[in-house]
Amino acid sequence: MAERSLIFPAVEFRRRCRALQRAMAERGQDALLLTAAADIYYVTGFLTRFWESPARPWFIVVPAEGDPVAVIPTIGADLMGRTWLTDIRTWDAPDPVDDGVTLLADTLAALVPERGAVGLPMGLETSLRMPLADYHALIGKLTPRRMVDATDTVQRVREIKSENEIAAIRRSCSIADAAFDTVPDFVGPGITLDAVFRTFQAALLAQGADWVSYTAGGAGQGGYGDVISPADATPLRPGDVLMLDTGAVRDGYFCDFDRNWAIGRAADDARRAHAVLFEATETALRELRPGHLACDAHRVLTDAIATRGATACGGRLGHGLGITLTEWPSFTPRDRTVLREGMVLTLEPSVQIAPGRILVHEENVVLRADGPELLSRRAPADLPVIGA
Amino acid sequence: MAERSLIFPAVEFRRRCRALQRAMAERGQDALLLTAAADIYYVTGFLTRFWESPARPWFIVVPAEGDPVAVIPTIGADLMGRTWLTDIRTWDAPDPVDDGVTLLADTLAALVPERGAVGLPMGLETSLRMPLADYHALIGKLTPRRMVDATDTVQRVREIKSENEIAAIRRSCSIADAAFDTVPDFVGPGITLDAVFRTFQAALLAQGADWVSYTAGGAGQGGYGDVISPADATPLRPGDVLMLDTGAVRDGYFCDFDRNWAIGRAADDARRAHAVLFEATETALRELRPGHLACDAHRVLTDAIATRGATACGGRLGHGLGITLTEWPSFTPRDRTVLREGMVLTLEPSVQIAPGRILVHEENVVLRADGPELLSRRAPADLPVIGA
Repeated sequence: MAERSLIFPAVEFRRRCRALQRAMAERGQDALLLTAAADIYYVTGFLTRFWESPARPWFIVVPAEGDPVAVIPTIGADLMGRTWLTDIRTWDAPDPVDDGVTLLADTLAALVPERGAVGLPMGLETSLRMPLADYHALIGKLTPRRMVDATDTVQRVREIKSENEIAAIRRSCSIADAAFDTVPDFVGPGITLDAVFRTFQAALLAQGADWVSYTAGGAGQGGYGDVISPADATPLRPGDVLMLDTGAVRDGYFCDFDRNWAIGRAADDARRAHAVLFEATETALRELRPGHLACDAHRVLTDAIATRGATACGGRLGHGLGITLTEWPSFTPRDRTVLREGMVLTLEPSVQIAPGRILVHEENVVLRADGPELLSRRAPADLPVIGA
Repeated sequence: MAERSLIFPAVEFRRRCRALQRAMAERGQDALLLTAAADIYYVTGFLTRFWESPARPWFIVVPAEGDPVAVIPTIGADLMGRTWLTDIRTWDAPDPVDDGVTLLADTLAALVPERGAVGLPMGLETSLRMPLADYHALIGKLTPRRMVDATDTVQRVREIKSENEIAAIRRSCSIADAAFDTVPDFVGPGITLDAVFRTFQAALLAQGADWVSYTAGGAGQGGYGDVISPADATPLRPGDVLMLDTGAVRDGYFCDFDRNWAIGRAADDARRAHAVLFEATETALRELRPGHLACDAHRVLTDAIATRGATACGGRLGHGLGITLTEWPSFTPRDRTVLREGMVLTLEPSVQIAPGRILVHEENVVLRADGPELLSRRAPADLPVIGA
């Protein structure tokens, strides 16, 4: 059968699979069980928005050697058949009596020795996308085989992006760059924040996003209070700072960065905060290197903010990026993940201007041997003003 | 403190909470632990697209009596503080050492007696949105308390929609109705399917969708092969049937229905298939009643299709709808869930015209005492032709 794949050539997925298998071998894992959309897309190229339905579980088994096996609902057979996978086993889901558990158990039992270990991501930033009761039934059927934590197996491989992946993320970033350029065309005093969010999403689609999985933002006099709330119908006012943040998706890869604008006029402290964020990001762009830890990146950003007399917000100041909006590691004081060449990361410093009033800033980079290379077009140094 | 809430008045959420507590009491559950976005939105009104980031777990504990407790990352405190909840406990997430586990365990331990049971959805259509290793650690901390399956507790309550919820779903349906009306304005021979998907999503936003979590579709000569694949750059050709399906979201509630169009001209068998689907849906609209089982609805639809000399596709022919794109039950031969007044459901018959060539049709209804009431505007009886 001819090799087929979606998005990337089959060799890209084979390479990923081999990398996972090397990591499995080092850790004594005889198979890897993947249930999350991102892990499954990573290994197979199976890209669909059908994950939005929580009705059915989907399974990919990566054996110690050879190609992955798909154990999936029948409805996905056609699309999975267009990826590089050839061993595709299906059941009619959703089945309230046996929703793929027996088929999955039989598949794993044939691939994993009786005293063997099935790796499954169980750690930070992972979750099991199958009913817990079915997982317990699966363990029962597989005993004496053991389920072991394979978070490290998956994350140490996925976190290093191939040039194909970097190009895909760069393209998503370019789409957001182009959409951000159009913001002054539809934003101004009196426009409501929910209208801004809607038009911004349409702009991302017009620039080539396949879909817009994430739009966030905020607006308020001289800064905003919160960056995760949905937009309401409050009209923008002169003196507001508007922030828009997006995870637009193209070919299954996200960008994740934001931009700020002052409406009509920029308050002095907002202007200063924007300059501090810009400078802190410049520092990180200059100083970050492979071998640093995630907590070092946090320190570089907080120090650069403190040096300029401002206060960094709590929470993480950057993270990984790729098939999901956010990936490990997290730039926090406690994350000791080693930053390595090929990681795609966000730099996301934020400052508190006053209680309940913050400014955030974000760029996307790939970490090269000699430091970060920008994937997003660099934000302007000065807070831009719309309708000045 | 004044009662505050988002989207709905606080009384709506209180009512939901009390209904859950009655269901918990009947089943001997001393608390309910919720981790999924939909369950958390249902109980609290906490609506955000921040769920797109897999980095952090979020927890809501519904005690046997009294109001729910939020155990959430600090970044959500502001937004959660604007819901009706007043007991909001936070930690700085993501924390690779203890990502909320101790705080959650302490919260549960204080609310659940030592020999008590913590309910957690573990069944069909559920998954645990927290790392499995953290769940195991939680069980260790809570022993001798037991974790028990609370799928039934949650699903029997959530599946009956309040009039507020029905109005919200109706509004999402109206947005899609209006967007479907615009399709002939931007679809025609030579337009590529990915361009159609992008413009259709923008049309949904223009009509008032907050975001578009799901767009699917297909196109092919006289029918399409698959309804879950992403769009590619294949241009539409005369004789194609185009199907667009959407889960557009307004105020956190989905619609989920589709429409078909023939491009230029309609093949006779596609026209006949469309008529069969329309008639099968008419039959279900006329016959479905509270007290029927989900499998009865499947039978009504398949019989109506077979009577007209056509063949229904495998898979489910309808499902619940609300806070997620698809909810239980499923119209399959094996789902014996009782259909009850107040359920919002999709009727989704599909026929196979030839191998690899299908047509699907979908409407959204609320089940009333005297039968289904349409929430989507009824599709035309005849397959519409664009650019005839």
